[in-house]
Amino acid sequence: MSFFTRNILNTQPILEIDLNRLLENYQKLAQIIAPATPSAVVKDDAYGLDAAVVAKALYEGAGCRHFWVAHAVEGAKIAPLVPEAQIFVLQGIGADSVDLFKQYHLTPVISSPEMLAFWKKHTLPNVKPVVHIDSGLNRLGFRAADLEKLSKADLKMFAMVISHLACADEKAHFMNHYQLEQFNLLRQKYFKGLPASLSASDGAFLGVDFCCDMVRLGAAMYGINTAPYRPNQMQNVITVKAPVLQVTDLAKGQFVGYSATYRAATARRIAIVSIGYGDGMPRSLSNVGKIFFRKDDKWQEARIIGRVSMDNIICDVTDIEKVQVGDWGYCVFDGYTLDDVARDAGTISYELLSRLGKNTRFARKYLLK
Amino acid sequence: MSFFTRNILNTQPILEIDLNRLLENYQKLAQIIAPATPSAVVKDDAYGLDAAVVAKALYEGAGCRHFWVAHAVEGAKIAPLVPEAQIFVLQGIGADSVDLFKQYHLTPVISSPEMLAFWKKHTLPNVKPVVHIDSGLNRLGFRAADLEKLSKADLKMFAMVISHLACADEKAHFMNHYQLEQFNLLRQKYFKGLPASLSASDGAFLGVDFCCDMVRLGAAMYGINTAPYRPNQMQNVITVKAPVLQVTDLAKGQFVGYSATYRAATARRIAIVSIGYGDGMPRSLSNVGKIFFRKDDKWQEARIIGRVSMDNIICDVTDIEKVQVGDWGYCVFDGYTLDDVARDAGTISYELLSRLGKNTRFARKYLLK
Repeated sequence: MSFFTRNILNTQPILEIDLNRLLENYQKLAQIIAPATPSAVVKDDAYGLDAAVVAKALYEGAGCRHFWVAHAVEGAKIAPLVPEAQIFVLQGIGADSVDLFKQYHLTPVISSPEMLAFWKKHTLPNVKPVVHIDSGLNRLGFRAADLEKLSKADLKMFAMVISHLACADEKAHFMNHYQLEQFNLLRQKYFKGLPASLSASDGAFLGVDFCCDMVRLGAAMYGINTAPYRPNQMQNVITVKAPVLQVTDLAKGQFVGYSATYRAATARRIAIVSIGYGDGMPRSLSNVGKIFFRKDDKWQEARIIGRVSMDNIICDVTDIEKVQVGDWGYCVFDGYTLDDVARDAGTISYELLSRLGKNTRFARKYLLK
Repeated sequence: MSFFTRNILNTQPILEIDLNRLLENYQKLAQIIAPATPSAVVKDDAYGLDAAVVAKALYEGAGCRHFWVAHAVEGAKIAPLVPEAQIFVLQGIGADSVDLFKQYHLTPVISSPEMLAFWKKHTLPNVKPVVHIDSGLNRLGFRAADLEKLSKADLKMFAMVISHLACADEKAHFMNHYQLEQFNLLRQKYFKGLPASLSASDGAFLGVDFCCDMVRLGAAMYGINTAPYRPNQMQNVITVKAPVLQVTDLAKGQFVGYSATYRAATARRIAIVSIGYGDGMPRSLSNVGKIFFRKDDKWQEARIIGRVSMDNIICDVTDIEKVQVGDWGYCVFDGYTLDDVARDAGTISYELLSRLGKNTRFARKYLLK
């Protein structure tokens, strides 16, 4: 059949991760925050991209020596790959993780009086923990009243003091300066002279005051625009594409997909693309999101119609030149980034990225010079 | 400190999968659809629960001998564990998967003229494929016009004919009988006498006409109510719980979480629970979802406040007796099932389940007698 002259029939979606760009993003961020020390956030399995691969690339290719994970199991995964680096565990230490801390020489972030009590019973030799104080996010961290109750010896046991911003992606939000003031006030009172870290990669763009001694670079390194009040300075890292399995006609009046949420008001031509929410494409893209097709150097946009299902997405290719079986439908790429897809899906790119990479059906390709 | 007398400080969330209940659901469904043959849908890595574990349990514990996956890579994963079973691959066969089909003796589901052409060039010895026809979902499958063009030899090469319903979770939806009629019409015309499968587990409840020769049991087996017009007949299979890392006070007027989307109108007491969207808890539960705490045999409900973040969820425990660090917050359990969480998150339980189990930070526990 003629299509074989141009196209190969494939069935599996592809996730491509450009580690060169990820490293360039990291290095650009490191320049922006200088003289603060850069560090890499590889929690949530490096936002789903595989923390082992990402941490190793940052360690070997960008000289990164400080990593942040959420859980000790995540630290254990990367520790053998970054032997001279320090690994901070944000959710801290508990009975279920103390052995991993010992085995992999992880550094706990202590965020509550109860965790401090636990730490004092399970102190690890040669490890000075980090203390997490709350400056207004009202999530994890010591409150001022908690700090007041600590002994002088308690206050002296830490290697670094950190906090976390609530609204750093909105440059003009009043919370930013409020939190900076709170943080500096508590530092002065309880942790004078101790190295400090306040900002993640959204805070990196708020100016030198917010950078303190170390910045925790995460989302921006992965290509997300963490300063959405101006164009993205980062490069897109992710490409998701999936093959067209079928192209067919839809007669006027026909319905498409589960619960028949799309009805053809006129005759349409549709393509069925081999990817779905089982691959991390949010179901909230139903009847809203887009799939792109490349013809030579031109990108053509096809609207998703009907419900996104577990394994397939249907899109309207009526106005697109000659889409055929075996063509690649692009779901995330330089022209329709994580930020764009997340906007269409009604969520944030952090959540989208965290979902995508964990799926086992992708053929995964890492680009690294 | 006193809390140690009752509670142990932990940091890692736990995902518990009750395989006994999963097998009981499967067996109950098998009775409902009898005399049709039951088969198990373990695509999307068994909706994230690990297809290797689930398929093995069904094979050894419930005598299941027919499995459906979406992609050949998924078939390859379970094949060694279910040696005498037949594994159907719904997305079919292509250049990227033909070797896996050979190696693991998988059965392709052929859904388009192009795929049939590919199959005829790459036929596997001793494998008769399944043909997928569209009966109104307008997703994958041969249309009537495609079937018209097939030769008699083409039509004779298949072992089974399948289709898929669009609205089977709405018993009274006109599409159900429309699709049944279309399916039977095309079967009569092109595939007379060939074994047939129309329904997934939502169709199983539509009556004997919809069950044909084989039913593809998926969502209901995992405990989802696929017939939401009446109470669930299935048992919940999933428990998700996470430890409280911190309990603290919130003064009147304080904000909580990213973008400060919650403001305390009165003084509150809050708990920070060690789970987030990085573990598959949808961010759309922000300010909407619930976390439950067990005191003796009583369940107490805490509203999620502020944004769900990657690693943490904050909930309001003002009215709950003595919640303390180390208590378990229940996110999914018998009293607040996948269906309940998905409703609060504005999605379906299929998508929720597909997300949850793929995350690597859970301590996973499988219950199996």
